[in-house]
Amino acid sequence: MAKAPVLTPQADDFPRWYQDVIAKAELADNGPVRGTMVIRPYAYAIWERMQAEVDRRIKDAGAENAYFPLFIPESYLTREAEHVEGFSPELAVVTHAGGKELEEPVVVRPTSETVIGEYMAKWIQSYRDLPLLLNQWANVVRWELRPRVFLRTSEFLWQEGHCAHATQEDGAAYAARVLHDVYADFMVRELAIPLFVGRKTRRERFAGAINTMTCEAMMGDGKALQMGTSHELGQNFARAFDMNYLDANGDQQLAWTTSWGVSTRMMGGLIMCHGDDGGLRLPPRIAAVQAVVMVVRDDESGTVASTARGLVDELRQAGVRVRLDDRVDTGFGRRATDWELKGVPVRIELGPRDVEAAEATVVRRDRRDAEDRGKQTVPLGRLIEEVPRLLDQAQQALHDQALARRDARTAEVSTIEEAVEAAATGFARIPYAALGEEGEDRLAEHAVTVRCLQRPDGSLPASDEEPDVLAYVARSY
Amino acid sequence: MAKAPVLTPQADDFPRWYQDVIAKAELADNGPVRGTMVIRPYAYAIWERMQAEVDRRIKDAGAENAYFPLFIPESYLTREAEHVEGFSPELAVVTHAGGKELEEPVVVRPTSETVIGEYMAKWIQSYRDLPLLLNQWANVVRWELRPRVFLRTSEFLWQEGHCAHATQEDGAAYAARVLHDVYADFMVRELAIPLFVGRKTRRERFAGAINTMTCEAMMGDGKALQMGTSHELGQNFARAFDMNYLDANGDQQLAWTTSWGVSTRMMGGLIMCHGDDGGLRLPPRIAAVQAVVMVVRDDESGTVASTARGLVDELRQAGVRVRLDDRVDTGFGRRATDWELKGVPVRIELGPRDVEAAEATVVRRDRRDAEDRGKQTVPLGRLIEEVPRLLDQAQQALHDQALARRDARTAEVSTIEEAVEAAATGFARIPYAALGEEGEDRLAEHAVTVRCLQRPDGSLPASDEEPDVLAYVARSY
Repeated sequence: MAKAPVLTPQADDFPRWYQDVIAKAELADNGPVRGTMVIRPYAYAIWERMQAEVDRRIKDAGAENAYFPLFIPESYLTREAEHVEGFSPELAVVTHAGGKELEEPVVVRPTSETVIGEYMAKWIQSYRDLPLLLNQWANVVRWELRPRVFLRTSEFLWQEGHCAHATQEDGAAYAARVLHDVYADFMVRELAIPLFVGRKTRRERFAGAINTMTCEAMMGDGKALQMGTSHELGQNFARAFDMNYLDANGDQQLAWTTSWGVSTRMMGGLIMCHGDDGGLRLPPRIAAVQAVVMVVRDDESGTVASTARGLVDELRQAGVRVRLDDRVDTGFGRRATDWELKGVPVRIELGPRDVEAAEATVVRRDRRDAEDRGKQTVPLGRLIEEVPRLLDQAQQALHDQALARRDARTAEVSTIEEAVEAAATGFARIPYAALGEEGEDRLAEHAVTVRCLQRPDGSLPASDEEPDVLAYVARSY
Repeated sequence: MAKAPVLTPQADDFPRWYQDVIAKAELADNGPVRGTMVIRPYAYAIWERMQAEVDRRIKDAGAENAYFPLFIPESYLTREAEHVEGFSPELAVVTHAGGKELEEPVVVRPTSETVIGEYMAKWIQSYRDLPLLLNQWANVVRWELRPRVFLRTSEFLWQEGHCAHATQEDGAAYAARVLHDVYADFMVRELAIPLFVGRKTRRERFAGAINTMTCEAMMGDGKALQMGTSHELGQNFARAFDMNYLDANGDQQLAWTTSWGVSTRMMGGLIMCHGDDGGLRLPPRIAAVQAVVMVVRDDESGTVASTARGLVDELRQAGVRVRLDDRVDTGFGRRATDWELKGVPVRIELGPRDVEAAEATVVRRDRRDAEDRGKQTVPLGRLIEEVPRLLDQAQQALHDQALARRDARTAEVSTIEEAVEAAATGFARIPYAALGEEGEDRLAEHAVTVRCLQRPDGSLPASDEEPDVLAYVARSY
């Protein structure tokens, strides 16, 4: 039975498919002010799960949450030269408040290195105060001329970690620890998104950093998405904000700082990494709704609805995040398509004949394109063991599919021309020596960039100049 | 042994005491932009617990979280006349962004009725879409001329619930449900703060509301703090944003809206309701650190420190939020004073002689002024049962003390003069008929206001004009 597609097929127009999913799965709307967004409850519930999982890992890494002001005096931004140059074009400026023109305009934070630097400098006196490991969950504003919901918005939600360390080595080790133990661990395990974890080239660094490290993922159309970054800021901000401390010998030293962040952009990555022509496909570990029990239609005695309610209770007690759909006045097909659109990992469909046969049709969302369309019949009595098992399988399958695609679409190349060609459909891996900064300029003419550098064994290079370093090259969001 | 006080005594200067506690317990700093604040990790951890407890109750009440933009077009604000009049003097306005002057200035949200109204109007089509129960956790900005950390800040953190209902009755019932089941339940149970829950007079209503209900608490100096409010907005915002729906008969109807919020202001209430001359006294259920195990001094073999670590592990496994203090290079007295300042409910002090006798000195923070100064000796083997019991007792004791003070300082009066006199040290209860709007004007000359109205049985009046309504009158923050 051929249905008219609910969404623009990915193969026809991937950006349009993305917009369609966001609208039809009720994830977000454009805000009234250019480039802002409204995050609707279904997407926000996923963001809350992301926050909880990232936050737990941040706390395990020893950082504490705090909150710093939204408004930053314009003069703070200018203290670190590269930083202000990087962010100036994107700033939103408050010039009037409380009915008056302000003496000094204030900037809406685009990121908080400067204001947090000012306070860290006050709080740090001695080596005993180090490392000082802080994080905040906040909104930031960077004015976007070409906004795209979740991916590039004038306001977005994120966490930003800001730390001060006694030595460069401590800072480097902590920035790498966050990259691996907080970000990569979260993205791979919870979001089921495989990554290239590497070092940014000088050209792609954060404004004010001496080293930026990144988690890069491949989306369904072969383009790259930067999912999260961790920066060594050297002593640039420490110097700008006089972040001095007394070491164990009583000598004055300048601290070393790091910063790191992930944002609502990850929602875009989740949609574009796993989505298919039916809509979202949510990895069960991050899904706010892992399973839905659908009453296909009820019988006169209401047995189907009461069986469904019983199942929901049982599954909930077994720790499954489950929802009941007993809206039998809406057509079953329409409801099923809607849950498919919303990417709920497992649907449990229950009609009068199923109840009579003491079984249910169970559908795994991730296997929509498989021959069996992900459907199987499961005895009611076995659902309580079967559903958690199916959720685990779905989690793994989504990861494996994304990994297989990424590897299939990553070409080994040796020239800039080949890299540009490969970037039309995926990533290219090329010795960085074959590129260099000049090669990056040439790639840029084709809207292609170096996403990250890795050693041949996949580890982080200590510098761009290290021999044998490999560059992953792609178009990107 | 008389010690120099760490803090200005409350009796000497309560506002100064408040500032001292905030600085010395490392709760917050003033931000660089007038009226903003930096929430430091120790206070932020308490705020996170407040958020979790309020959020759980909000979800139990059926509302879903979402996120709406920080920036609101200036034109939105002006659509509801009373609303814009109320908020205009406090607005911060962005006039420049992305390096250009904006065509229409945008306002930094002081509250989100307008922007959420615009979207609700889009989302609501039929009576089946109602009630629409939304909430967001966000920062808002209201420019403050006389800022005070946590109590009145130009930027603060809060949750704001925004709901649309089919009928006035539904809206009224839901606004009251949030007031009681979310706010009052949280404040009494978790914060141990007794309340007067009542109706605001017309004079004290939220700008744009037809009814504002409030939770009012008495602080240590006898002044009132408005801890949270819930508003019936009638059809004012629904009309301004064309929030129409088709009812079951297919007729077009205008929705009814409500909104409700609590903020970081509750941190101020927590400090001022329970604090004493030693600093904070945190109710155990909201304390981020419920107990600290202090190594008084170690012996050569390190037995004290290892016993302390073992205790911490055991207590943590028993569900106590516990921290180890083994910084023996800092004087014991100084550390004890610091934990007292920070209001940690239970201190467990362990020295070499204690370990030898297989016991510990346990100190309940809330009983600092009692004859035994809250101290008792507890065998080590019994701590695991005793500590949770002491935490429960401390929670109850803080509530009971606050309740006793509130009742002792609430005077039954019948004239405006008596009300003003009583408000010098606490609250006055007076028949609202003896005041009226004219009486409110006269109270205002003495900086005294009606905090809320109640029926004699403590329930919510349906209007200011109801006979027998009682007014609680006080000075306030």
